[in-house]
Amino acid sequence: MHHPGNVFVVSAPSGAGKSTLVQRLVRSVPDLIFSISFTTRKPRPGEVDGRDYFYIADDRFDAMVRDGGFVEWVQVYGHRYGTGRDWLNEMLATGQDVLLDIETTGALNLRKAIPEARMIFILPPSADSLEQRLRSRGKDSDEQIAIRMRHARHEMELYPAYDYLVMNDDLELAYRQFESVILATRASRERMAPAAQCILEGF
Amino acid sequence: MHHPGNVFVVSAPSGAGKSTLVQRLVRSVPDLIFSISFTTRKPRPGEVDGRDYFYIADDRFDAMVRDGGFVEWVQVYGHRYGTGRDWLNEMLATGQDVLLDIETTGALNLRKAIPEARMIFILPPSADSLEQRLRSRGKDSDEQIAIRMRHARHEMELYPAYDYLVMNDDLELAYRQFESVILATRASRERMAPAAQCILEGF
Repeated sequence: MHHPGNVFVVSAPSGAGKSTLVQRLVRSVPDLIFSISFTTRKPRPGEVDGRDYFYIADDRFDAMVRDGGFVEWVQVYGHRYGTGRDWLNEMLATGQDVLLDIETTGALNLRKAIPEARMIFILPPSADSLEQRLRSRGKDSDEQIAIRMRHARHEMELYPAYDYLVMNDDLELAYRQFESVILATRASRERMAPAAQCILEGF
Repeated sequence: MHHPGNVFVVSAPSGAGKSTLVQRLVRSVPDLIFSISFTTRKPRPGEVDGRDYFYIADDRFDAMVRDGGFVEWVQVYGHRYGTGRDWLNEMLATGQDVLLDIETTGALNLRKAIPEARMIFILPPSADSLEQRLRSRGKDSDEQIAIRMRHARHEMELYPAYDYLVMNDDLELAYRQFESVILATRASRERMAPAAQCILEGF
């Protein structure tokens, strides 16, 4: 399927600094919409339906899966998360670029559905630095950190499936690289050819 | 051939604002070297051998052509210009990225020699605006401007051979897009995979 808008996917091991980068990107780059997923988990305090997620019941999620209503969906820790096909197509049809923040498994599924999606992986500078960042949050026990680190390793193993690998060592540099993927994609021949053709015809 | 460094090529019709963009890019982006071409034309006042061009005699240019010493070369208005193979390989081998500012004909030749080169074309916002910019320089007669516009049209026709088309309407926006091609290429999987693999092995 061809869209006027581009699809960008970002994934990262927990603690790599993805949320900070994503929030700044969505604030700074015009015409870039952050995707809102459907989920069967309950809202956490402070979360808002239609802003953080679309919260739906299990049977409605089942029905959407059955009807092909998801571009991709995954189950994580007993809850399901999915990207709605109609929602995505609507955004793209208006020429908006859409940024999806999804886990590696969901990202690989999305790649199958939208092969032209640009996939970005945020790399921590090292395993040690990731572990330090997780500890400095003070939210997790040693055991939980060990589980997160094993999960992070599993996610890291999937980096070869991504088009761009942005190392988040220096935040400013990482941000500029992250943003550059969106800007460069907008300057790609595929995207700009109609405008170029129009200019040429004026000569 | 595989290099640690990337090759970027930039072309544009005369008057599209390429020089301004290139100068700023080379000042702002670290580890990006601006290519110095060989030429058989004489230095103009203010030009310096080894900075603007390597100025060489016709028979030496002939010998370099014969020995395969150029990655690409072209003849323009009776003078020849070429990119030296040894010079380029030396820069790339040290991991420097190299930016080549060459005419469309030379760029197409370079593409054959280095298929992985990223090729960037600077678009004027319109034929009219290009003509106005040429007139406002006050350097050319009406006849010379007509010749430049015909030449510009010929160059514009080759835009489909380029990977990125940067429209120079708003200079700041154009600069950010131009720079983003270099930064995004540096974050590409091909370039970053060795670092990612090294990080993964630390988990």
